Amino acid sequence: MKRLKTLFLLDPEVTFLNHGSFGATPRPVLENYQDWQCRLEYQPVQYLVRELQGNFRTARQKLASYLKIDPENLVYVPNATFAVNVIARSLVFQPGDELLTSNHEYGACDNIWDFLSQKKGLKVIHQDIPIPLPSKEDMIEIIWEGVSEKTRLIFLSQITSPSAIRLPVEEICQRAREAGILILVDGAHAPGQMDLDLNQLGADFYTGNCHKWMMAPKGSGFLHIRSEHQSLVEPLIVSWGWGENCPYENDSRLQSILEWWGTKDPAAYFSTPSAIAFQQEHQWDKIREECRNLLAGALQRIEILTGLQSIYGENENNFIQIGAAEWPREWNPENLQSWLYDRHKIEIPVIQWKDRWLIRPSVQGYNSQEDLDLLVQALGEYKTKEQ
Amino acid sequence: MKRLKTLFLLDPEVTFLNHGSFGATPRPVLENYQDWQCRLEYQPVQYLVRELQGNFRTARQKLASYLKIDPENLVYVPNATFAVNVIARSLVFQPGDELLTSNHEYGACDNIWDFLSQKKGLKVIHQDIPIPLPSKEDMIEIIWEGVSEKTRLIFLSQITSPSAIRLPVEEICQRAREAGILILVDGAHAPGQMDLDLNQLGADFYTGNCHKWMMAPKGSGFLHIRSEHQSLVEPLIVSWGWGENCPYENDSRLQSILEWWGTKDPAAYFSTPSAIAFQQEHQWDKIREECRNLLAGALQRIEILTGLQSIYGENENNFIQIGAAEWPREWNPENLQSWLYDRHKIEIPVIQWKDRWLIRPSVQGYNSQEDLDLLVQALGEYKTKEQ
Repeated sequence: MKRLKTLFLLDPEVTFLNHGSFGATPRPVLENYQDWQCRLEYQPVQYLVRELQGNFRTARQKLASYLKIDPENLVYVPNATFAVNVIARSLVFQPGDELLTSNHEYGACDNIWDFLSQKKGLKVIHQDIPIPLPSKEDMIEIIWEGVSEKTRLIFLSQITSPSAIRLPVEEICQRAREAGILILVDGAHAPGQMDLDLNQLGADFYTGNCHKWMMAPKGSGFLHIRSEHQSLVEPLIVSWGWGENCPYENDSRLQSILEWWGTKDPAAYFSTPSAIAFQQEHQWDKIREECRNLLAGALQRIEILTGLQSIYGENENNFIQIGAAEWPREWNPENLQSWLYDRHKIEIPVIQWKDRWLIRPSVQGYNSQEDLDLLVQALGEYKTKEQ
Repeated sequence: MKRLKTLFLLDPEVTFLNHGSFGATPRPVLENYQDWQCRLEYQPVQYLVRELQGNFRTARQKLASYLKIDPENLVYVPNATFAVNVIARSLVFQPGDELLTSNHEYGACDNIWDFLSQKKGLKVIHQDIPIPLPSKEDMIEIIWEGVSEKTRLIFLSQITSPSAIRLPVEEICQRAREAGILILVDGAHAPGQMDLDLNQLGADFYTGNCHKWMMAPKGSGFLHIRSEHQSLVEPLIVSWGWGENCPYENDSRLQSILEWWGTKDPAAYFSTPSAIAFQQEHQWDKIREECRNLLAGALQRIEILTGLQSIYGENENNFIQIGAAEWPREWNPENLQSWLYDRHKIEIPVIQWKDRWLIRPSVQGYNSQEDLDLLVQALGEYKTKEQ
């Protein structure tokens, strides 16, 4: 994989093991992004009026085919947080209505529900999934135990952000549909790390980022809404596309009310197909598998170093390109992240989750065995210092 | 001014007289924009975590000084429509509360108030300012006649979009403050066309676009909120910055809740100072004056051609770089815009406003007398054809 590193713009002096936070974009994709920007400046009205809807349609079709869905039910959004806000602010919650989620969710999304708790009296139920993880069946039961008659919406990450675990969203989606409860899946980390078939998954609402593991430029995400629920959705930002006189020739109301809200640069959306093409050209299935193996080896070595059990417990294979290992509370985890960067130029997050500390390496196509060796060696050095 | 044209990326084959819709960005500013994007890709975590707030602070300071306000009361937003949504969705309207506005506002913003009318029972009062315009004093009286005991907010454009007229917002702001009524000014077209002193203007809420007449890259706008009203404002998109555990070291709550809502490309904000510098380097005050003179001459020639009175009526000098002239209903105005483009490659909007049709030329530093000559000549040809 080492040869792939030159295809990225990343600082060669840094051992970059934090693809998970913001992604990284390959040169040809960034070039395509900036080329769209120059095309806009060549004829702004041609680009932003006469050609805009056609270019959106093409970009949606490519993404829809990648996600195995109908493009009519898909909109581009800047990121998953934006999309979760769209759903959260559209649904009508009565005081006492319940939102069921886990205790592994992304902080910004936790804030959305807390906001609705303050404003609308929404009750937020965080089901407690312990680490090391129980079996998949037990995880399903733990989550489902949180369902009550008042459950209005279930919100779960497909791959969690602080702990990098895969939640059993396939099974929860199925149960939710059987029970007639709406479910919103936050796939911020999923597309690009795993092959998705969103029609089969069957979530009522599904959002993901294209700028993380799909490697599109920053500010490209999507929201998929099953057609039967689209009438529930309102615009987050009211603009030309809302109301009876919508001037856009869109394929669906969803696209009119959500996708275009005043002048901005749509290049991140329009260059997302080039990020999909990049993966195909470089046989990303194989790269992903190599990454997973490198990550598995590194996590194992970290666990040997710390003497702590894998956080994946009975769910041994529950990660792909992003994973986590616990770091002992006694070994100064607060300063580990900055020490790794300042001393060894290793960029990796060390995250406090509840009263535990997790090292969360990401492995992407530009990484190599040497990167993970350096990480493990540095952690050994820190252990000697802090033990 | 002709020499300035090469500093823009605009298609040399097109006579571009529609700066007003989306702006156009000079090469050095676009280069700065794309340079920020490359810097992001060089070290995404350094850029989006450790350096983000500092770069926002610098970009805010430059813009605040340009607008003559305190940077603590300023946030970057993607565009003015976004900012109007922030205020519209934050204020608590009771059924029957009134929003006072004009009948010259931007369609997307009209939609925002219609949305609140449907959802919250807000009553929208459009004061009817006729064209040709009455005197400034009469315009002030016409607008103010719409105030009632139930007026909760006044919303006015500083320079209107469909009709390119300057509304007397200075005087209305003063009256609103005396009456204790909140006022939101939509300055989408103002910054860059006129020198602003927002502190002196005294609007409670003021939004503008940097990507139009300031020539910043697409997706750069701002919202200024007087400090005494900031507690009224809620996030449009709830993210990390809302709530007690905001991880950002911002200068104000306003910035925490409004400015950063998940991963996206902040380059349009960060390159706005280079757009300000570009104006200064090229003595934009003089360019603006030249543009105004070119525009005034062209409007006069169009009025001679049509035999219709200036829409500015008793407000003779009520435009700067964007203006409008009426086109006779009888001379096929519906097809004029596309004919001008298809036949003469002249890009200019022809806008239906109520039952009238307005040609709305913009003149920017890249335009020349020849562009306006070509416009007038083409309009003469169309007249001969359709008269």
